[in-house]
Amino acid sequence: VMAAVWSRWPRLRCLRSSHARTAAPQGPWALARRALHVASVSLQEVALTSERYGVQRLPFSRVSCDDVVFFERLMPGRVVTNADELELFNVDWLKSVRGSSKLLLKPQTAAEVSQVLRYCYERNLAVNPQGGNTGLVGGSVPVFDEIILSTILMSQVISFDEVSGILVCQAGCILENLNQYVEEKGFVMPLDLGAKGSCHIGGNVATNAGGLRLLRYGSLRGTVLGLEVVLADGSVLDCLASLRKDNTGYDLKQLFIGSEGTLGVITAVSILCPQKPKAVNLAFLGCQSFTQVLNTFTTCRAMLGEVLSAFEFMDDKCMELVEQHLKLSKPVTGNPFYVLIETSGSNSTHDEEKLNNFLERAMTSGLVTDGTVATDEKKIKAILVSFAFLLSSIPQMLWSLRERITEALAHDGYVYKYDISLPVGKLYDLVTDTRARLGRCAKNVVGYGHLGDGNLHLNITADSYSHSLLDAIEPFVYEWTARCNGSISAEHGLGFKKKCFIQYSKPKEAILLMQRFKAMLDPKGILNPYKTLPSSS
Amino acid sequence: VMAAVWSRWPRLRCLRSSHARTAAPQGPWALARRALHVASVSLQEVALTSERYGVQRLPFSRVSCDDVVFFERLMPGRVVTNADELELFNVDWLKSVRGSSKLLLKPQTAAEVSQVLRYCYERNLAVNPQGGNTGLVGGSVPVFDEIILSTILMSQVISFDEVSGILVCQAGCILENLNQYVEEKGFVMPLDLGAKGSCHIGGNVATNAGGLRLLRYGSLRGTVLGLEVVLADGSVLDCLASLRKDNTGYDLKQLFIGSEGTLGVITAVSILCPQKPKAVNLAFLGCQSFTQVLNTFTTCRAMLGEVLSAFEFMDDKCMELVEQHLKLSKPVTGNPFYVLIETSGSNSTHDEEKLNNFLERAMTSGLVTDGTVATDEKKIKAILVSFAFLLSSIPQMLWSLRERITEALAHDGYVYKYDISLPVGKLYDLVTDTRARLGRCAKNVVGYGHLGDGNLHLNITADSYSHSLLDAIEPFVYEWTARCNGSISAEHGLGFKKKCFIQYSKPKEAILLMQRFKAMLDPKGILNPYKTLPSSS
Repeated sequence: VMAAVWSRWPRLRCLRSSHARTAAPQGPWALARRALHVASVSLQEVALTSERYGVQRLPFSRVSCDDVVFFERLMPGRVVTNADELELFNVDWLKSVRGSSKLLLKPQTAAEVSQVLRYCYERNLAVNPQGGNTGLVGGSVPVFDEIILSTILMSQVISFDEVSGILVCQAGCILENLNQYVEEKGFVMPLDLGAKGSCHIGGNVATNAGGLRLLRYGSLRGTVLGLEVVLADGSVLDCLASLRKDNTGYDLKQLFIGSEGTLGVITAVSILCPQKPKAVNLAFLGCQSFTQVLNTFTTCRAMLGEVLSAFEFMDDKCMELVEQHLKLSKPVTGNPFYVLIETSGSNSTHDEEKLNNFLERAMTSGLVTDGTVATDEKKIKAILVSFAFLLSSIPQMLWSLRERITEALAHDGYVYKYDISLPVGKLYDLVTDTRARLGRCAKNVVGYGHLGDGNLHLNITADSYSHSLLDAIEPFVYEWTARCNGSISAEHGLGFKKKCFIQYSKPKEAILLMQRFKAMLDPKGILNPYKTLPSSS
Repeated sequence: VMAAVWSRWPRLRCLRSSHARTAAPQGPWALARRALHVASVSLQEVALTSERYGVQRLPFSRVSCDDVVFFERLMPGRVVTNADELELFNVDWLKSVRGSSKLLLKPQTAAEVSQVLRYCYERNLAVNPQGGNTGLVGGSVPVFDEIILSTILMSQVISFDEVSGILVCQAGCILENLNQYVEEKGFVMPLDLGAKGSCHIGGNVATNAGGLRLLRYGSLRGTVLGLEVVLADGSVLDCLASLRKDNTGYDLKQLFIGSEGTLGVITAVSILCPQKPKAVNLAFLGCQSFTQVLNTFTTCRAMLGEVLSAFEFMDDKCMELVEQHLKLSKPVTGNPFYVLIETSGSNSTHDEEKLNNFLERAMTSGLVTDGTVATDEKKIKAILVSFAFLLSSIPQMLWSLRERITEALAHDGYVYKYDISLPVGKLYDLVTDTRARLGRCAKNVVGYGHLGDGNLHLNITADSYSHSLLDAIEPFVYEWTARCNGSISAEHGLGFKKKCFIQYSKPKEAILLMQRFKAMLDPKGILNPYKTLPSSS
C-alpha cells in the first residue's frame, strides 16, 4: 500500500509564481534562495529561472548524436531519448524541481556504469545518478541537461548469509522488495521509510537515509558494511566487504555514504540486517503539551529499553491535515500532540508486559491523556475497524497516520519543507516560534518527526509561493537552528535546494575540505553538478 | 582491577632473536616481514634492525635545542626530554616495538596541539600521536625519533546531555573513567575492552576499537557523533557535532575514525552513550565442538534477541593458559570450547526468563554440555566463591577469564598475534588448519574472540622467535584469510606491524586512494609515519 502511495505523485497545486513582481535585490544569497523556491513552483521555467538568478550551466559538453550512438552500442535498448519517458526522470517526486535532460541510461552492471563514466569523463559530459527519485531536496534530478544514469535495472540480490544476516545486492534494489526478501529468511532491513516502495537502496545509502528504525538499529554508517562505487573517471572501487569488522586502512566507503552521488556512483551495497522481531506492538497516544511528550519519551525509553524501536511525534495540525486530505482518522482525539511508539522484540509476552507497565505509569502520572494500543494482529484489527480503516495490512494503518503526513502536506498547498536536528528539549520551540512569527501569512505551520533521534520535520504551507513569506521563514529558521548547534538537514541531505545553506551547520574549514575531496575524486566535476556543496570558486 | 592489570606490563620473556643466522634472502616482502618480528624480540635493536631490513628513516628534520626551547615556552613543564620518562612512551604495551624519540609533549588543549603541529609542519618534524599506548600493532609508539604527542593531559569532560546521553570530552579521557562518569548518570559507554583502564577515548576512535559491546551497540562509526581534529598543518577541523543525525555534506569525521593518527590528531570526541542496563546476566558454557558453538550462537541470538550483549568464545587451550599463568580457574571443565554469553536489559525478570529458556533449550538439545549462570550479584558470588575467585568486583570475574587471555598468552612465550575477520562458519577452521600445519614447531596455537562479530583472535606461542616458524605462519594465515574474503585486521588496525599486509584485504585501487587521501591531508607525511599504509613510492 505504501509503495503505491509513494509512487503515485500527489496532485500538487502547481500554482505559478508571482515572480513578475520585481523584488528589490538583496544580494546574491537572497536571490539564489528565492530562485530555488521559485523553481519549485514554476516547473516549466526552472532552468531559465535558475540561470536568471545565478545558477548557471557549467561548461560541460552537450550530448551529441555520436554520444547516443556510443551508448546505444554499449547498452542496446536501454538508452532513452524519448521526451515523454524522460519526463518522469527529469522531475522530482515533490514536483519541485525540473531538469531538461535529453538522455537517460539504464545500465545493468557496474562494468556498464564504469564504461559510461569513463566515456563521459573523457567527453566532459555531466551525469546525474538517480535511484528511485524519491529525494526531498532536488538531489536526484538533473538541473540542466545532465545525462541521467538510473539504477532502475540494477536490481539483483547478489548474496544473503542466513547466519550473519549480511545482504549484498545491486544498488537499484527497491527497499521494500529487499525487506520482503530478507523477511522470508527471518531478518529485516535496518532501515524503513515512507518511500520504501519506490526508493533504491543505492539512493538510500547515497542520501544516508534515516527513517523510522534508526532509533533501534542505528544509522547506515554502522549497518552498511561495504560498497562498490564507480568513480568519476570510470574506475571501479571495490569496497564490497561482507564483514562486520575490518580495520585495514581508511574506511573509504564512508565518504560515499551521504555524498548524494557527487563523489561516485554506488553500484552495490553490503548491509547488515537485524533479526526479524517476533513481536511488534504499537501505541498511539495523546499528550496535552510538548513537555509531556518529552517526559513520555524519557519514561518510555527507561521502561521499554531495548524493545523500543520507534518514538515518533506529530502535532494536532498534522493529524488534521491527514484526516482532511487523505480521509484517515486518528484513533485518539482532542490533544495538541500525539506520539506513536513501536516496540519490536523477541518475546511477545515480555514486550506486552513492558508496554503495559509503561502505559500504566504514563496514564497514572498524567503524562498521557488517552491512547490506543495494538499488541497483536487481532486487537489491532478490532481497534482499527472501529475507526473505519480499510487498508489491507493492519500494522501499517497506525503507521500510515505518521508516514503519510508528507503526502497530506503536499495536498495542502505550496510547502516550505525543513528537516532539522536539534537538542530534543528544544525541538518544538522552533515550530512555536515560527508559527508566532508568520501569523496569518502561513496557512499551516506543522511539526512532526523522529523525536527519539532529535529530528524535527517543520513544514509550512501556503496557498501559493510568496517571496515575502519565504523572507519571513529564511534565514530565520536556519539562524534559529544554528544558534542551537542544530543541523539544517538531519536526514534529507542538501541536494540542489539546500546546498547554499550548508554554512549554517558546518564551519568554513569543513566545507573547504569537502570541496577538496570533491576536486580530488571528480576533478572535472561531472558527477551530479550543482548539488550538495556550494561551488568552490 | 582490569585497569591495574592492563597498565602493569606482563613479564614477557624477552628472548633475543637468533638473527645471527643469515637467512637466504627471499625478496623484500619476506625480509620486511621478518624485520617486524625480529624487532618484536630484540628490543634494544629495533631501529637498527628496521634500517637493515629496509624500513628506513625518512628525511624529516631532527629535533634541535631551538625546537625544545620553542615547545618549553609554549607549554612550560609539559615537555619531556628525560630518557627514563620517555622509555614508557617509546615502547608499546606488548613490548614488541621500540622507538627512540627524544621528545615528548603533553598539550592540554586543541589550541596547543594546533600550535605544535603548525610548528612541526613548518620545521618538517615527524610526530607520533599517542593515547594510552595500549595498541597491539605498534601504531602508538614512534619508529625512529618522531616527537611523541601524548593526549595524557587532555582528560576533561566537556559536556554530557542527560536526556540524549551524548558525551563530549577531550581525547585523553580514559575509557574506564568515562564509563564511571556516565554510569553515575544512568548510561554506559558504547564500547568496552580489556585495556579500558589505560586506553584513551581518542586512541579508541583513532583505532576504531571494537571490543566487547560491539555486538549490542554497534561500531564507533555509528556511535561517534562528532570529532575535533587537528590536521598536519595545524589547522583545526571542528566536526564536534552533538546530533544523532546530520546530513549536511560529507561526513569528514569518518575518515579520521580508524586512521591511526596518520591523517590528523583527534583532540575531542562526541559520542552517544546507551542507557545503562538494569540487569546484566552472564552464562559460561562448555561445548563439545565448534559446530555446537555455532549452533549455540544461532539459538542464543534467536531466543535472547535484543538482550544479547556479548557472545565470546575461547578454546580449551586459552583457558588452560589463563589457569596456568594467571591462576584463574574456569567454572566448567572438560570441554574443547567455552562460550561466555552476556545479556543486558531493562527488566531482570524478563531477561532471566529469556536466558533460562535458552539454557534449557541448549541443554536439552545437547548443544551445551555444562554451564554456569550468574543471574544476579548474590548468585554470581556463590558460584564464584566455590571456584576460589578472590577479585573485588564479581561480574568481572567471569569476564576476566575472557579478558585476560591476552595477558596469559604474553606469559607463555613469544606470541605471533593475528586478529582476523571471517565468515562465522569458517572462524575456527583457520585455527585447526594452522595448528595442523605448524605441528610441534609451535608451543600453543589458540583461538578465541568475538564470535558474534565474526572476529577471531588467532595466537601462536613459541619459546622464542624463529624465522622458520614465521615462514610457516605467514603468508599462510593471510592467504587463508584472503581466500575467504576475510580481513587481516578486524579491530586492532594495521599500525607499524601489519601495514605491509593490507593488500590481502584491500584491492590495489583502494590502497592507492588511501594514499591519495594521506598525501592530500598530510603532504609532508609528518603524522605517524611508517604506519597504516605501505609507502606510496
